[in-house]
Amino acid sequence: MPPIKINHIAIVVEEVDAALKFWRDALGLPLQHVEHNEGEEVDIAFLPVGDSEIELIAPFTETSGVAKYLAKKGAGLHHLCIEVEDIAAALAQLSAQNIELINDAPRARPDGTRYAFVHPRATGGVLLELYELPAERKHS
Amino acid sequence: MPPIKINHIAIVVEEVDAALKFWRDALGLPLQHVEHNEGEEVDIAFLPVGDSEIELIAPFTETSGVAKYLAKKGAGLHHLCIEVEDIAAALAQLSAQNIELINDAPRARPDGTRYAFVHPRATGGVLLELYELPAERKHS
Repeated sequence: MPPIKINHIAIVVEEVDAALKFWRDALGLPLQHVEHNEGEEVDIAFLPVGDSEIELIAPFTETSGVAKYLAKKGAGLHHLCIEVEDIAAALAQLSAQNIELINDAPRARPDGTRYAFVHPRATGGVLLELYELPAERKHS
Repeated sequence: MPPIKINHIAIVVEEVDAALKFWRDALGLPLQHVEHNEGEEVDIAFLPVGDSEIELIAPFTETSGVAKYLAKKGAGLHHLCIEVEDIAAALAQLSAQNIELINDAPRARPDGTRYAFVHPRATGGVLLELYELPAERKHS
């Protein structure tokens, strides 16, 4: 079963409010909400566009993975997230073809979304996240 | 009027066939077609996903802008393209807010798509392309 759609594009920024001056105020994307994520030490602004979202991610400590990425690589496109119907089946299919995964098994967010990352070495340089939405939020 | 959707995500790769081994064969995205673009000196594979596309872009000379990007930055996410209803209006709105554009006026592709790039300095590190589809391909 082919992947469903682009769920989101994540952009690492220095600071959410400054980034919103472009993405919301100048470009005109609606801001759905901003999440203060203590676990990952980032603020995330969610801006829907069509059937996908743009996520602006800013670290609020210097110790998180995102903070280290920002210090090393600078602001910009960070990862692509593609939604699939069945993430366990998708990971099994990738493993069977010797694709290098960061997460061999799906992990779960508090809202029930299951996710896993594919290593950039396997994709040609792209950090790729796979999502399976909880049943009540699936489109089908 | 807010932007319509993500039209495509462009990924710079070393070589299209090798990249297709992941994006098409392992991940399962359909390949729509591969374009050999003499003007920009790149091959581009178009892979639809949901209402958007993933474009895999590989230089076939060492002189193109994409070849220089690849040599300097390596393979990975290159640019994000967002579709708007009226690109002239969108550019005017951005210019009015002193957003730095790479193309002050829309340019046209052979198929009639009008496009312009916004400078990464203005977006927080993201090379952003805006698209206006020709009238016969618009959704509305």
